[in-house]
Amino acid sequence: MSTILAAADVGGTAIKLGFFTEQGELLKKWEIPTDISEHGKNILPDIGRSLRTAAKEAGDAKIAGLGVGIPGPVSENGVVEQCINLGWRRPVEIQKELEQLLPEVPLIRCGNDASVAALGELWMGAGKNYDSAYLITLGTGVGGGYATKGRIVYGAHGAAGEIGHLAVNIRETVPCVCGGHGCLEQYASANGLVRLAKNLLEYRDDTQTETSLHIERLFEFEKTELPAERSGLEELDRFTAKEICDLAREGDAFCKFVLKVFGDCLGLAMNYISCTIDPEVFLIGGGLSNAGEIVLDTIRRGYLRYAISACLETGIVRAQLGNDAGIYGCVRLLLPEA
Amino acid sequence: MSTILAAADVGGTAIKLGFFTEQGELLKKWEIPTDISEHGKNILPDIGRSLRTAAKEAGDAKIAGLGVGIPGPVSENGVVEQCINLGWRRPVEIQKELEQLLPEVPLIRCGNDASVAALGELWMGAGKNYDSAYLITLGTGVGGGYATKGRIVYGAHGAAGEIGHLAVNIRETVPCVCGGHGCLEQYASANGLVRLAKNLLEYRDDTQTETSLHIERLFEFEKTELPAERSGLEELDRFTAKEICDLAREGDAFCKFVLKVFGDCLGLAMNYISCTIDPEVFLIGGGLSNAGEIVLDTIRRGYLRYAISACLETGIVRAQLGNDAGIYGCVRLLLPEA
Repeated sequence: MSTILAAADVGGTAIKLGFFTEQGELLKKWEIPTDISEHGKNILPDIGRSLRTAAKEAGDAKIAGLGVGIPGPVSENGVVEQCINLGWRRPVEIQKELEQLLPEVPLIRCGNDASVAALGELWMGAGKNYDSAYLITLGTGVGGGYATKGRIVYGAHGAAGEIGHLAVNIRETVPCVCGGHGCLEQYASANGLVRLAKNLLEYRDDTQTETSLHIERLFEFEKTELPAERSGLEELDRFTAKEICDLAREGDAFCKFVLKVFGDCLGLAMNYISCTIDPEVFLIGGGLSNAGEIVLDTIRRGYLRYAISACLETGIVRAQLGNDAGIYGCVRLLLPEA
Repeated sequence: MSTILAAADVGGTAIKLGFFTEQGELLKKWEIPTDISEHGKNILPDIGRSLRTAAKEAGDAKIAGLGVGIPGPVSENGVVEQCINLGWRRPVEIQKELEQLLPEVPLIRCGNDASVAALGELWMGAGKNYDSAYLITLGTGVGGGYATKGRIVYGAHGAAGEIGHLAVNIRETVPCVCGGHGCLEQYASANGLVRLAKNLLEYRDDTQTETSLHIERLFEFEKTELPAERSGLEELDRFTAKEICDLAREGDAFCKFVLKVFGDCLGLAMNYISCTIDPEVFLIGGGLSNAGEIVLDTIRRGYLRYAISACLETGIVRAQLGNDAGIYGCVRLLLPEA
């Protein structure tokens, strides 16, 4: 009977599970669907059941610890106030509930999913050679997580890393899902990039003197600066963030301009992060990071435009572990500080 | 022969020195001038000499540790790249130099002055009942420092807490001392507040359609919203930040408006800090905090305007230790983590 460490990275549609050796070697990973019916009451029991079954199949392995990542603000003692993605509309004591469901597991720790992914990258991924890393995930939304010296930073309300809601453009008229206006996520997520492109296209072709984003006021550009030549986007009925990046890579001037604005938004937000906490490296993850160097370059340029001199050399690197970052970080939560 | 802990909080004009018991009780404090002649080469030797003399006078007390605060970005190993305020234009290995100057002192630690003040407040001041505190000092400039669990956060380049250079208004045309544009310190320092008032007065009374700050675009207000009634500021040839606060307290509508813009700038910056690191409490210190509740209230309103829901209850409290925060924090650097 071997001893293993377990990880559960809970997402809105699937829960990624993993078994690791105590040295952090991945032994096995699998997924189960996230059952958000009945206010998500089956989520934690499903995790418990799946881990127990898998441990049995692995020759009655003994689970020495379980780390859990949750897509919402989690406090250091494993409580989430609410987590809409999971159907949890009331506080859930994740750690305590899992301790009751899995009394045979002596150590259970929880963290926010992006923070846990940052820790995973710091441990085994793109952050391996650094002491501290701020992960920025550019996906459906914009997430963030900060890890330093082998630990995640939770924040007093579990909200450290909520950088999707940095108010980069308070003049924005359309509200963010959070109720605020001009949150980073309204421009720098995959959806945000598409919206940015649509708005800038309309603005270019309309008689209006400003975009509905008001972002031309923030970055002080004139309508006439928008590349006038026909963009590949205009050939498409609908387009995705990936298509914007692909066209930019092929030289589409309008898409390059859109990416520049996107990079300026992110660069500005990264100035805020550097001045506040000064991480050693920024790791860029999430679906948009798969577009590769064109996105990374854009972000580096945006950052250098706003960075203070002490932080000009902060690294900006693509995350490496992809969807596995979370399970690695979950396991790292169980090991001693660096 | 008793054993004591020593503190040296170095400022641009004076160095505050202190002796404490090992339990953190202040035994004695004094000041010496900061000699910035000859590129500040006498600063560290002066500290060494003054501490040695004072220890002798205190019945040959044995200095078990020395904590030092420096007005610039300091790395965890006690190196500052440059510190213009002190005349240091090249890297100075503060810890190493002091170890050579005071070989009888077994433990020497350094930190940025605002970070050290945050730690002092967290230990013995307004942050005493909290786990983590972000100190914002509103003085000639705007400084910041973050302390959590009995330790200061240095940042990878010693720049954690450089919140004076959060770019809150990138449309600003006048550059900040740092070379950037629209840094928080350009509006929320004592000088910044005076400049804000002057600019808004000129804007109100001029034919121009925008302020030279362009801040009316950021916060979306119209010239017509500026209180038209004569302000007490107009009776004065020159005025100070204190006078703006005093007049606002007495009901001067124009000064109240100026303070509102000031509070919005700070509130926006505090949204950036909360989303990035989510401190339990903000401590407001520095000369401007002496104006009391009118300034604190303004800041609270500005913060609530931009805070995300998870961070609405973050405390905003006036710092308590005044100029002594630094020497307390210096000594706390020498004690174990919380």
